[in-house]
Amino acid sequence: MNTDMKIVEGGVCAAKGFVAGGVHCGIRKNRTKRDLSMIFSKVRATAAATYTTNLVKGAPLTVTKNHISDGYAQAVICNSGNANTCNADGVEIAEKMSALCADALGISASDVVVASTGVIGQPLNLAPIAEGIPVLAASLSEDGSDAAAQGIMTTDVVKKEIAVEFSLGGKTCRIGGIAKGSGMIHPNMATMLVFITTDAAISAKMLGKALSTDIKNTFNMISVDGDTSTNDMVTVLANGMAGNAEITEDGADFETFMKALNTVNVYLCRMIAGDGEGATKLLECKVTGAKDEANAKTVAKSVICSNLLKAAMFGADANWGRVLCAIGYSGADVDVNKVDVSFRSVKGEIAVCKNGAGIPFSEEKAKEILLEKEIEILVGLGDGASDATAYGCDLTYDYVKINGDYRT
Amino acid sequence: MNTDMKIVEGGVCAAKGFVAGGVHCGIRKNRTKRDLSMIFSKVRATAAATYTTNLVKGAPLTVTKNHISDGYAQAVICNSGNANTCNADGVEIAEKMSALCADALGISASDVVVASTGVIGQPLNLAPIAEGIPVLAASLSEDGSDAAAQGIMTTDVVKKEIAVEFSLGGKTCRIGGIAKGSGMIHPNMATMLVFITTDAAISAKMLGKALSTDIKNTFNMISVDGDTSTNDMVTVLANGMAGNAEITEDGADFETFMKALNTVNVYLCRMIAGDGEGATKLLECKVTGAKDEANAKTVAKSVICSNLLKAAMFGADANWGRVLCAIGYSGADVDVNKVDVSFRSVKGEIAVCKNGAGIPFSEEKAKEILLEKEIEILVGLGDGASDATAYGCDLTYDYVKINGDYRT
Repeated sequence: MNTDMKIVEGGVCAAKGFVAGGVHCGIRKNRTKRDLSMIFSKVRATAAATYTTNLVKGAPLTVTKNHISDGYAQAVICNSGNANTCNADGVEIAEKMSALCADALGISASDVVVASTGVIGQPLNLAPIAEGIPVLAASLSEDGSDAAAQGIMTTDVVKKEIAVEFSLGGKTCRIGGIAKGSGMIHPNMATMLVFITTDAAISAKMLGKALSTDIKNTFNMISVDGDTSTNDMVTVLANGMAGNAEITEDGADFETFMKALNTVNVYLCRMIAGDGEGATKLLECKVTGAKDEANAKTVAKSVICSNLLKAAMFGADANWGRVLCAIGYSGADVDVNKVDVSFRSVKGEIAVCKNGAGIPFSEEKAKEILLEKEIEILVGLGDGASDATAYGCDLTYDYVKINGDYRT
Repeated sequence: MNTDMKIVEGGVCAAKGFVAGGVHCGIRKNRTKRDLSMIFSKVRATAAATYTTNLVKGAPLTVTKNHISDGYAQAVICNSGNANTCNADGVEIAEKMSALCADALGISASDVVVASTGVIGQPLNLAPIAEGIPVLAASLSEDGSDAAAQGIMTTDVVKKEIAVEFSLGGKTCRIGGIAKGSGMIHPNMATMLVFITTDAAISAKMLGKALSTDIKNTFNMISVDGDTSTNDMVTVLANGMAGNAEITEDGADFETFMKALNTVNVYLCRMIAGDGEGATKLLECKVTGAKDEANAKTVAKSVICSNLLKAAMFGADANWGRVLCAIGYSGADVDVNKVDVSFRSVKGEIAVCKNGAGIPFSEEKAKEILLEKEIEILVGLGDGASDATAYGCDLTYDYVKINGDYRT
């Protein structure tokens, strides 16, 4: 955590000029579950987004990409319960959602970011959304981030929300975000649904640069189950209401903004990974000593994706051979005879492998460490100065249960 | 099944001149579980093998590779319960295992194929093996394939054994195999442990060509959990005792041999996939209409590897959106708007997606089809004439249970 930054309340409404809300409109049967969320900036904001690399793309992504191609947006509308993907009328429905949102807010439909999450391949009924949008628009408030964060959840157990405060040229700026993501999480160049807002003034070009740079170390380093969703999307809206001099180029201000964005994103990453479907533990694989960053990332991601290691972590079993195995098949350029492995949690750290071979360790101590909720898998490659961190979770009975009958 | 081929009894002892056996020597605590197996050819045989691509390689693989570098071998020794991998003295132990086996059989240690499977990173105690080998060698018989197949099993529930009979130049030939493999199964250029024997006469060069060609369509197309083991190995020994003219070049005889080998390998693949750790179902993803074979294979493997689809199959849930999703992130060159998907089992076939979008179907009928033990996921890409099949299994509570506490 940067010392010039502090965490504040308010999520996506922490930044000046943003209001949000979430309601139950009827896409989901459970009336206590919000299923429609909205975020609104009082002024037009510069906008940037990254999208899934899956060739099968949700219709809302196509529409959003088109809407923010001019670098601006003013509102976000998002439903849960249905992904509006692989439907013949998907784009038409997503356009209509945008138009309904724009009408209710008195803005242009081309300034609306539209998103959907839920089951793939079931037609999305617009009727409950059409009914819900005016109610939702009327409910928007500066306290609405909580409801908005709830409205985008699917199998998520934990609501994901964060905001930080920092300073640019003497002006107090804030950046906040909400996210959803629990299964089908293995982003590649983009990820799940993350909505970030800031009152910092920053050009669309620099906002895009900040986002695309940061996600390579954050959202693209998460994996819950190796499945890259069709609807992954991260968007950031910057409305400039903090009054700082607009960031239009590289430099100290941009670096500060990047640090704030990274703080928000790392927090949301850890929340998403820790709330992976059925997960009981957050896993972080921290790789050091790699030849270069690409190798560090490849190793970290391979370890965090190993079903066998994930199951071992669920069982608090220090089966480090599975870490070595995952490093070996990762495709990274590593000397396996130089690999060190340790496990760490709040209960301490234990070395289990040195130079690619096992070393004696206390199984009792290892068990104590691994029974904690947040586990770090430390991998030293002894081959250079690059590092990387990947975020994941354990593989549990509940992951299977949740996904064995998701649609019913 | 080729009409000129028939399945016969005997496994690795079906071919003339091969004897085998398996005993409990004490690597495993459970005295009713065989943990040491041997296969012996009465005459030296040409030999070929393929190995894991994992950079972390089991010590026995290094030793075996060296032993059969001359194209010949005469015996196989394999223990279960310990992988002899990531141990400082691994190669030394594997060499000693080979020497003990050679001494007991009166052959050269350099004609021994040595293999190990089990936990990674625990020193392998040679004492029980040294005691077991003479007993095992004395027990070898033409009925010993069953015991040998048992001795290499780890978490396998089902013993994997097959043999076929075919004809080469009027001479009756046989080819048979045993295999183990249940978890850490995601072969890449090689796979789990498979031992194949044949009495056909075939040069080491052509034997190697037959094996390396066939595994691309068989063992390399299986995935149980996406984890490529450190100890995968397929070996084939051909002792020539069938009396056919030695196969030394491409041609009709080589084609016939390839068909027989493929029959054995496909059978073992389906057994390995269907006996994946915790599996309740065998899944086969059959891709047709691909631009080329590489794309067909990439799509088939991506679908069969999707944790989400695997969990849906466990729940007999026709969640075809997950098939589309896996195709989309596979990296293959496909037009997602041309993709058709059906599910098939002995209960019938049901189309669920046409041209990349859902079509109405009977959930009841789909459930009936998916409740069966062997499920085909049929993917039409509408983009060419190439096809591929991948083999996998569902993801179940028991996979998590087995791997949550494998070592204890």
